[in-house]
Amino acid sequence: MKILIVGGNGTIGSKVSSHFSKKHEVIVAGRNSGDVIVDMADSASVKALFEKVGPVDAVVCTAGEAKWADFDSMTEDDFYIGIKSKLMGQVNLVQIGKDHMNPGGSFTLSTGILADHPVLMTTSAAMVNGGIHSFVKAVCLELKNNIRINVVSSGLVEDAIEHYGAYFPGHNPIPMTKVVNGFVKSVEGAGTGKIIRMYDNC
Amino acid sequence: MKILIVGGNGTIGSKVSSHFSKKHEVIVAGRNSGDVIVDMADSASVKALFEKVGPVDAVVCTAGEAKWADFDSMTEDDFYIGIKSKLMGQVNLVQIGKDHMNPGGSFTLSTGILADHPVLMTTSAAMVNGGIHSFVKAVCLELKNNIRINVVSSGLVEDAIEHYGAYFPGHNPIPMTKVVNGFVKSVEGAGTGKIIRMYDNC
Repeated sequence: MKILIVGGNGTIGSKVSSHFSKKHEVIVAGRNSGDVIVDMADSASVKALFEKVGPVDAVVCTAGEAKWADFDSMTEDDFYIGIKSKLMGQVNLVQIGKDHMNPGGSFTLSTGILADHPVLMTTSAAMVNGGIHSFVKAVCLELKNNIRINVVSSGLVEDAIEHYGAYFPGHNPIPMTKVVNGFVKSVEGAGTGKIIRMYDNC
Repeated sequence: MKILIVGGNGTIGSKVSSHFSKKHEVIVAGRNSGDVIVDMADSASVKALFEKVGPVDAVVCTAGEAKWADFDSMTEDDFYIGIKSKLMGQVNLVQIGKDHMNPGGSFTLSTGILADHPVLMTTSAAMVNGGIHSFVKAVCLELKNNIRINVVSSGLVEDAIEHYGAYFPGHNPIPMTKVVNGFVKSVEGAGTGKIIRMYDNC
């Protein structure tokens, strides 16, 4: 398979890319590094990405940001950081990417445990994650040519404990191998419209 | 209680307003009609609303729109109709309204069954509903002064069958009295962070 991994050099993306590279042709796209540079919040940049990469069998997205801050201090513009990036960035990948996807191909988006079990300072991050979950359930009804779509929702991953552990009191860290398996299940499995929850402590 | 109902003249809002008016002081706000005119997609308009209405004990939102269309035909701007209105409009109501809410007061937002069980043409509507569900779970952790927040997610309501029934094959219509009870449970109950699902057929 020819697999495009957007955010393929990130904390989760690098492990996902490394795994799929053993059996598949992997193209890494990223905002600052990778085989192709892309800003997923900019639909023109997403169009240019697919025109450069050409038809693919799978698109995996492990990119997208949202602002973490106390709700009291969050401005409308702060919410739009996540809306433009992690929410509409991923929608853009599907909307534009579906026309560059081989029949039977798949999209695998990324969210996180915050959609179901938010912590402090995540009104925006939780919101965009929850939005993507429902988007995936809706768009799977309409994708043509047997194109599938799923989303992997990870808990606090082991490789992020140093930076994020303090924000997730009582959360059991998830081994990276389990998280990678969520993406494998989506890309190499047959399911569609699934929220693949990779956490075990809620 | 002094209850502000945004969208209080709509299909659901009019029944909710009518019910609460029996026991409470109700102020209806709407885009085209009501005691006060407000465009919830415009934060300046929301600010003006609360400055005019003054402190309240409950805010109920039964307003908010999103574009229904085939995913193939949905543009980025089409998605932003729902993002600005039903998603960020409701976030704005909470962000601005919390400073005009009496201690122990409550917000009750509105979504719909599409967040969990979308139908064709609802990639945007499902997405914003799912986003609000996760937002409510997150923001309830941060609201001060014992202010509560819940969201009522209705199935296809009886009063909307004529306009929307054909889009919801096999859905059991929900009596308006049951939907109204969802709002009563939120406003007069003690729960917070709850998604009050008013549907029974999934």
